[in-house]
Amino acid sequence: MLDAMTDASALTIGDVRDAHDRIRPHVRRTPVLRSDYLDALTGAALHFKCENLQEAGAFKVRGATNAVFGLDDALAEKGVCTHSSGNHALSLAWAAGRRGIPCNVVMPRTAPEAKKDAVRRYGGTITECDPSTSSREAVFAEVQAATGGAFVHPYNDPRVICGQATCALEMLEQVEGLEAVVAPIGGGGMISGTCLTLSNLAPEIAVFAAEPLNADDAARSLQAGRIIADDAPETVADGLKVPLKENTWHFVSRFVTDIPTATEEEIVDAMKLAWKHLRVVMEPSSAVALAVVLKHRARFAGKRVGVIVTGGNVDLDRLPWMAG
Amino acid sequence: MLDAMTDASALTIGDVRDAHDRIRPHVRRTPVLRSDYLDALTGAALHFKCENLQEAGAFKVRGATNAVFGLDDALAEKGVCTHSSGNHALSLAWAAGRRGIPCNVVMPRTAPEAKKDAVRRYGGTITECDPSTSSREAVFAEVQAATGGAFVHPYNDPRVICGQATCALEMLEQVEGLEAVVAPIGGGGMISGTCLTLSNLAPEIAVFAAEPLNADDAARSLQAGRIIADDAPETVADGLKVPLKENTWHFVSRFVTDIPTATEEEIVDAMKLAWKHLRVVMEPSSAVALAVVLKHRARFAGKRVGVIVTGGNVDLDRLPWMAG
Repeated sequence: MLDAMTDASALTIGDVRDAHDRIRPHVRRTPVLRSDYLDALTGAALHFKCENLQEAGAFKVRGATNAVFGLDDALAEKGVCTHSSGNHALSLAWAAGRRGIPCNVVMPRTAPEAKKDAVRRYGGTITECDPSTSSREAVFAEVQAATGGAFVHPYNDPRVICGQATCALEMLEQVEGLEAVVAPIGGGGMISGTCLTLSNLAPEIAVFAAEPLNADDAARSLQAGRIIADDAPETVADGLKVPLKENTWHFVSRFVTDIPTATEEEIVDAMKLAWKHLRVVMEPSSAVALAVVLKHRARFAGKRVGVIVTGGNVDLDRLPWMAG
Repeated sequence: MLDAMTDASALTIGDVRDAHDRIRPHVRRTPVLRSDYLDALTGAALHFKCENLQEAGAFKVRGATNAVFGLDDALAEKGVCTHSSGNHALSLAWAAGRRGIPCNVVMPRTAPEAKKDAVRRYGGTITECDPSTSSREAVFAEVQAATGGAFVHPYNDPRVICGQATCALEMLEQVEGLEAVVAPIGGGGMISGTCLTLSNLAPEIAVFAAEPLNADDAARSLQAGRIIADDAPETVADGLKVPLKENTWHFVSRFVTDIPTATEEEIVDAMKLAWKHLRVVMEPSSAVALAVVLKHRARFAGKRVGVIVTGGNVDLDRLPWMAG
């Protein structure tokens, strides 16, 4: 079994298959949905891999479950802890609940209520911090010292990257002839997992990361050839504010074709369009992928494209296209 | 091929299989989704057959496609026409568009804008009427006389009932050991199709129809042993305002176990709960099924239950749990 200290560059497709076997009793094989309307609009054959339909509403259950169920009993006893803007926090709480171990999470106080509610519903304990990377890391150090739980980083962790990599593994089984895959990028966990799987099994498939223009640190990193981190970007895509770290940079720098961006308005428009025509509840962070496919039409038109719908945890009383 | 005049009591499971072969190139085999949270809440094992994930967002495409593609070329030339509160209208327009024939529909002016927009997007022509059965029928007579199109009734039509019956056929293939199926009832097309399939292939499965208390004409009909029709009931479940007719009464009176009801508040609560935990966009009419499972817990707890999610066409700017 991998541990948190393994170098992500050492990960193999065998590790991904092991992760898939480990998590299969717990997470769903999510469906791939289609929309003729969105195909016509984009000129592409879009295949939406709906991780929002996981029980906890996010792909993050894959990595969290892989990490939680990979702990040996002695380590597991003290539980797990993490910091997260939301979906990793609730996914880790969900996975810890299934194993019956404690889970402590540090979340920005501005995180969506729907995500905080879910952490509590799954039995997790929340400590709030300010909405900046610096505050998050400081508060987390205190929580970890007090609880002694095993730290499961939301993305800079080989166990987590391997778990997220199982999504692309399923998509390859579900869809033939994919030519490109698009997924949102925040810290880069899903994109890294996608690169890990595709670079081994289907290197002909181009991987695009989709990022909010307001939090385009990954796009600037790719251009600069080194990690650029912003402390507290502002975007409706609340899951995508965090910076790359060395383990995800490994994959992003080597295997990502490009990181196109979309504006806040384009993200909200794409979200509403997806709710209307795909008829699934997708959160703003997920809609960034569709937004870039719509905006950068020429990159995707005529192609068979996999679009990873990363999560569906939304405050239904505060939808971003509603005034006030 | 069946025609509109066939007596529904003569329908066989062979007709359903023929319909399935006829529509398969056009409609989706929709997925069955699960929610551990909703299972825990209801004590039942709920299997949601998501017809809202059809391209046109409603199970009605099954019956409409079966009728449209069953027309001989001479009849098809003049197109089709119908009256409908929404989903049958847009589904018929969609099916007619696929065959390249005209479609004229009469819709109440109070129908959701999302449904009217979809009719137009699919190339249908709308004539508006008042929101009562009497106005609808009067305006429709004029439209039919003017266009000469083949009338495809939204539910009192054997071709339509046979098409809707294909949903239960798929569900039997997708889910083992079902003990009950719940679907909303308006005019009774989906329920009749469900009864047609299950009474032939799995008569041990109980069929429950779910109805808004504010439009409980089917429940009162079942109690009285004859069709009772209201002219203009008021409910948020806009798809369920129409009365039973002889072809659907045939199935409802013989094969439906019971018709439990739910209040407007219970329907909206169930709708929001489904969006939150199942993470699909389901319209109020569809949420009635979940609402009765929640309300009449003892009828379903401990059982494997199929819940037919009938549609997902909602005005996203006017959600019923939002004030104003």
